[in-house]
Amino acid sequence: MKKVVTTDFEVRWGECDPAGIVYHPVYIDWFSVARMHFLKENGISYMESFHDNGIVLVVLGVQSRYFKTLRAEDQVKVEARMEKLTRTRIEMAYRVVNAAGELCTEGKTEHAYVDERNRAVNVAKKLPEVWNLMQSRLQD
Amino acid sequence: MKKVVTTDFEVRWGECDPAGIVYHPVYIDWFSVARMHFLKENGISYMESFHDNGIVLVVLGVQSRYFKTLRAEDQVKVEARMEKLTRTRIEMAYRVVNAAGELCTEGKTEHAYVDERNRAVNVAKKLPEVWNLMQSRLQD
Amino acid sequence: MKKVVTTDFEVRWGECDPAGIVYHPVYIDWFSVARMHFLKENGISYMESFHDNGIVLVVLGVQSRYFKTLRAEDQVKVEARMEKLTRTRIEMAYRVVNAAGELCTEGKTEHAYVDERNRAVNVAKKLPEVWNLMQSRLQD
Amino acid sequence: MKKVVTTDFEVRWGECDPAGIVYHPVYIDWFSVARMHFLKENGISYMESFHDNGIVLVVLGVQSRYFKTLRAEDQVKVEARMEKLTRTRIEMAYRVVNAAGELCTEGKTEHAYVDERNRAVNVAKKLPEVWNLMQSRLQD
Repeated sequence: MKKVVTTDFEVRWGECDPAGIVYHPVYIDWFSVARMHFLKENGISYMESFHDNGIVLVVLGVQSRYFKTLRAEDQVKVEARMEKLTRTRIEMAYRVVNAAGELCTEGKTEHAYVDERNRAVNVAKKLPEVWNLMQSRLQD
Repeated sequence: MKKVVTTDFEVRWGECDPAGIVYHPVYIDWFSVARMHFLKENGISYMESFHDNGIVLVVLGVQSRYFKTLRAEDQVKVEARMEKLTRTRIEMAYRVVNAAGELCTEGKTEHAYVDERNRAVNVAKKLPEVWNLMQSRLQD
Repeated sequence: MKKVVTTDFEVRWGECDPAGIVYHPVYIDWFSVARMHFLKENGISYMESFHDNGIVLVVLGVQSRYFKTLRAEDQVKVEARMEKLTRTRIEMAYRVVNAAGELCTEGKTEHAYVDERNRAVNVAKKLPEVWNLMQSRLQD
Repeated sequence: MKKVVTTDFEVRWGECDPAGIVYHPVYIDWFSVARMHFLKENGISYMESFHDNGIVLVVLGVQSRYFKTLRAEDQVKVEARMEKLTRTRIEMAYRVVNAAGELCTEGKTEHAYVDERNRAVNVAKKLPEVWNLMQSRLQD
């Protein structure tokens, strides 16, 4: 099991704003990419395991702190780790690190499993195989 | 019936790039906003008439020409008009005009109606009421 | 002076994700739009007063909580208010409300003034006229 | 010299729309990424060679045709090639190919070199070293 999964990014021109730096909501988008990559590296395709079964890992909260700016063509690593895993919730944390290894941004996201009508879902009941995989791979 | 529908925009900071101007794909996004507004002003909610009935107005082609740049906080008007309407296709044209009335960008989009499996749909058969409304409002 | 400034949005198709709801980083982008509109309604153009003078209102932190989802074509109001104003920092708070008046999202952003080399700026010294205007309009 | 440069993408959740497919303006953004990667693979950093010297490769026109849709987590290759190179203009072409090797989208972009006041620039005069490199690497 991989407790921390790192995703590589090269900053895109269109991700930067007129100040010449990465526009701050873009980091929240990177967290999504890093989160899906985290799941995939632990054996779970978000699209196949959740989306195609009508389950949404809806976002309850986001927070991020910004320390150093980045610009287009910069090489970046986003580290994602699971902070909490229950039958109804997930919490994840992220660190964005530049090519020099400096911390640029860190953040957290909280999620609940819901169905397509936005009703809370117990993932252990609804998707027992996925739950077992998540538990065995992510929680020890 | 409204042959040309105009949508007002104020350029967002996040729509601009490190050159300080609107990032060129953003105009294509504005065309979508203007297209849905065009339909709505002609009595058709895209979400209720198409999306909720499982029909996608999928994009077959896009083209745009750029004449003058825009920056954040600029006031913009996007004019949308229907160029072609058949049972299986739509073509639309757009003009982006700045506060001084100058043409900044113009473009076209072509669309086909498809269902959720991406199969071509005859909108006159699948959604006769919407088709009648479109024809009466849009085509004379 | 306007303590709370409200900005109207219609949710764009391209702001929504495959779950059919507004993608969560988009709310952070709306906060930016609402913040610039808040300043403008209080007599300050961000582009002319800050950007054109080489000052960036850089983001130090963002947080948001999500309560209700929104989908394309939904009408939304984003209320922005100043929570803190000093010579070196700004804190703002936001509420996103749907057409039924229900709270969908709330959030906060913290900012510092920096110059183009990312060095902290005392806005009262660097831009005294803007500072006086901000103080008189925003802080009483 | 590399006549065709291929860039790998994994489709991001936030790049898809409520129809569950990549939102069509996103392909135009991918063209930008592929274009900068094309230059870099041929020895030119867009940020260092153009942006830091006050030159913008502004977009004059975009066109794209869409053949097959893509969804989140799909693996994609975008091939970029130079179609025309003069002292004042560039034209590039792109092909987006899915994991099965099928053509999903193809497009073109046209660009002119301008300075920060949006005036046309002769790149051979303004940036002779970059021009020589481009010519030797790209044009034979």
